[in-house]
Amino acid sequence: MSSVVRGSQLVRLLDRWQSIRGPAGTRLPDYAALAGTVRGLVRDGRLALGVRLPSERELAEALAISRTTVSAAYRELRESGHLSSRRGSGSWTALPEGHRIATSGMWAPTDELDVIDLGCAALAAPPELTTAVGEALADLPRYSGGAGYHPTGLLELREKVARGFVARGVPTHADQIMIANGVQHAFDLILRLLVSPGQPVLVESPTYPNVLAALQAHRARVSTDNLDPRTGWDPDMLLGALRSGRPTLAYLIPEFHNPTGHLMPVSLRERLPAAAHRAGTDLIVDESFVDLPLGAASAPAVALFDRNARVLTVGGMTKPYWGGLRVGWIRAAAPVIARLSALRVAVDMAGPVLDQLVAVRLLDRADEVIAARRIQLAHQRDALVGALREYLPGWTFTVPAGGVCLWAELEAPVSTALAHAAHEEGVRLAAGPSFGVAGTLERFVRLPFTLPEDDLTEAVRRLAAAAANLDHSHPRERYAPALVA
Amino acid sequence: MSSVVRGSQLVRLLDRWQSIRGPAGTRLPDYAALAGTVRGLVRDGRLALGVRLPSERELAEALAISRTTVSAAYRELRESGHLSSRRGSGSWTALPEGHRIATSGMWAPTDELDVIDLGCAALAAPPELTTAVGEALADLPRYSGGAGYHPTGLLELREKVARGFVARGVPTHADQIMIANGVQHAFDLILRLLVSPGQPVLVESPTYPNVLAALQAHRARVSTDNLDPRTGWDPDMLLGALRSGRPTLAYLIPEFHNPTGHLMPVSLRERLPAAAHRAGTDLIVDESFVDLPLGAASAPAVALFDRNARVLTVGGMTKPYWGGLRVGWIRAAAPVIARLSALRVAVDMAGPVLDQLVAVRLLDRADEVIAARRIQLAHQRDALVGALREYLPGWTFTVPAGGVCLWAELEAPVSTALAHAAHEEGVRLAAGPSFGVAGTLERFVRLPFTLPEDDLTEAVRRLAAAAANLDHSHPRERYAPALVA
Repeated sequence: MSSVVRGSQLVRLLDRWQSIRGPAGTRLPDYAALAGTVRGLVRDGRLALGVRLPSERELAEALAISRTTVSAAYRELRESGHLSSRRGSGSWTALPEGHRIATSGMWAPTDELDVIDLGCAALAAPPELTTAVGEALADLPRYSGGAGYHPTGLLELREKVARGFVARGVPTHADQIMIANGVQHAFDLILRLLVSPGQPVLVESPTYPNVLAALQAHRARVSTDNLDPRTGWDPDMLLGALRSGRPTLAYLIPEFHNPTGHLMPVSLRERLPAAAHRAGTDLIVDESFVDLPLGAASAPAVALFDRNARVLTVGGMTKPYWGGLRVGWIRAAAPVIARLSALRVAVDMAGPVLDQLVAVRLLDRADEVIAARRIQLAHQRDALVGALREYLPGWTFTVPAGGVCLWAELEAPVSTALAHAAHEEGVRLAAGPSFGVAGTLERFVRLPFTLPEDDLTEAVRRLAAAAANLDHSHPRERYAPALVA
Repeated sequence: MSSVVRGSQLVRLLDRWQSIRGPAGTRLPDYAALAGTVRGLVRDGRLALGVRLPSERELAEALAISRTTVSAAYRELRESGHLSSRRGSGSWTALPEGHRIATSGMWAPTDELDVIDLGCAALAAPPELTTAVGEALADLPRYSGGAGYHPTGLLELREKVARGFVARGVPTHADQIMIANGVQHAFDLILRLLVSPGQPVLVESPTYPNVLAALQAHRARVSTDNLDPRTGWDPDMLLGALRSGRPTLAYLIPEFHNPTGHLMPVSLRERLPAAAHRAGTDLIVDESFVDLPLGAASAPAVALFDRNARVLTVGGMTKPYWGGLRVGWIRAAAPVIARLSALRVAVDMAGPVLDQLVAVRLLDRADEVIAARRIQLAHQRDALVGALREYLPGWTFTVPAGGVCLWAELEAPVSTALAHAAHEEGVRLAAGPSFGVAGTLERFVRLPFTLPEDDLTEAVRRLAAAAANLDHSHPRERYAPALVA
């Protein structure tokens, strides 16, 4: 087991565990409340699967409760399949039988026919996929005579991606592009190259949960720059965090930020690369959503203002095209690209040739695919906004100008409880705290608008029912004291 | 930079650096000999790209030479593009311009039209690939309506792989199978789950170089079990290494071992899982070559004798089918599979849907594809054996009973020098030391027979020329004292 959670860390995650309630608001015995809270942490991904928990003695001391209570809680978790033990190796979080790993990294029951999945912010494939695969099939003979290993990616795809940057005004040669198996893979490769355990990494709060998971896996020391839900980045705060924290790496999502949807203003983009350089910080700029403005808003790439090869730009096919196509990319200085490619020998050798050929053919059709996506997403966003205003008028949000998500502020810091209640009503939801560190963001929830309009409206109806039940069984004051970012 | 080589480690790798010679056997100044040796280590992959070298002062002390000499060597390496520096961050190994990362993880000039690549033991795609892709295109609509993320792999492929194990007599349910992006990726995921930095891992010597690279990246403490080039495993040695070393993990290639081609005897297979269990060791069994016996030889799967869920079996499409198709798998206990799938959220989310559909359709045709592969490989092996006996009669080897490689013993421990000389003659070669740790195995070279027969014969002719030049310019006694495993 490579991942261990210490007693003090688990205490932070458990937060107000004694306040959780049974059906109809009944008070639970301590052991059941503790077990239930751990289960919730595993379900919403804040406690990863396969993480070793502290010993019963250590956790009892950290929580200042009796070891008998912790023993009983661990026993219940073992019986429900959420904890595995092996003598001499301790106990680690596990997946109960009959559950699967869901698309969002959360686990979910295997059979959930009527569940609407708002955990995953991804679209179905565009109709052009079929044509592109047919064309890729015709292209395949150019590669099938070789061994099929292309650690940096197929040159024709790297050239096409480079031309995409050039079209946005960012001079780019194919040597500066590496193809990865999606954006998450690109991020993991960069972490392997640039970050050692214990080094400081700056991220936005909220941010993309799977990046937090990767940083945890690499044992980085994470610090956050808080985004205002209404106005986005505070330039002085962000530049100050670079200056004072001197992080090894900073990870930012300036293009229709996930989950808030904000677009970083030009004035901040202009200042970022130089500030990063002065702080000795390499800057990962995630452009997953750059092709998906839902209005007129757009801004020049951050890489355009980079004079010191400090910016690594990541992007890919996942969000605008399809998640089942594992194609992402990294734009960086040519020597960095060479080092990233060389790393892959120890990681996964190379990416799939066929997916890369399909990506080339889809990018040939970028104009039509993206235009249709933007229309589709704008309609779906409007349906979601309309349903929220009708059924949950107390929730507040900024209508996002692009991307695929809306970041809603609840009337109270009850996001985790809401996610549990929503699950009962048939909606899977990523609670606010998944998007941050240390259990803050309980006042927020991310609502992707990647599903059809009818599903979104029905999901909001169910969320309204869940929220109403929650108000009934969990008096609001119980959650009041939480500090929310 | 996450990877650092300490002075003492580099000294071990540099070995007898003062003995390397210039053109026609001329003696080189120390700085040039040092720079040339570092270049050689980078070229054959023993020193990875992006590894930070010790400071000039530290290396000078470790080698007991003047700092001026080290400074001059580093300067030469910087000028030739093999070293990058940034003020305050030290110097790390790099890729000179105009070179690319080759399939084997070694780097190579970008334009090598007439070079025969024996560095890479992989076949061109089988003709059935085209049909399989066409069928996968028809299957795609079953998945393209969803988000496309399947972290454990498509169920239909997992079921097909499970049936393959069942057909070999190993009871297996789809819950025990996870699909990864090739065998190397499977291995990396397992390391992430099971091995922490500093933990002991046992591998064979020789073994697969990219596994050594992954173990180095995870900072595992590697120990080796030496294979006899003629007879393979010594059961008492291997079981004793488990008993006394109690490694966290052992990685073995019992099915036509890479690079030696040996098939592990049944009697040892029977004893391995229980011995691993007693030692507290999880056992990775690499079955990359299990489908490629080139005669009648075969043996029951190691997993068949596993009573304690200690065996993780990895295999995939890469070697029998095509490396451009990134599909591998892991067979393990269902809870381990669930934990491995959950890990991917932080690594790469999921694998390509299309490649998995192609794999299903290729496995439908396994009988015809594999039968043709075995005939092809047997012919190519025989061509290689014939050429070696004709042109290099002093080299000795066991004719492999399966797999895609032959492990030849040279007349002297000159493998690295031979690889350099071979490159001059137009053959890329992975020198013996790439397959082991700490610079041993200089007496051996791996010769894959994955290329067409004429190419293999021509490659051996060129190797004979390289070996003859080597005998001329590098008197044998200079290499004599090396201890070879």
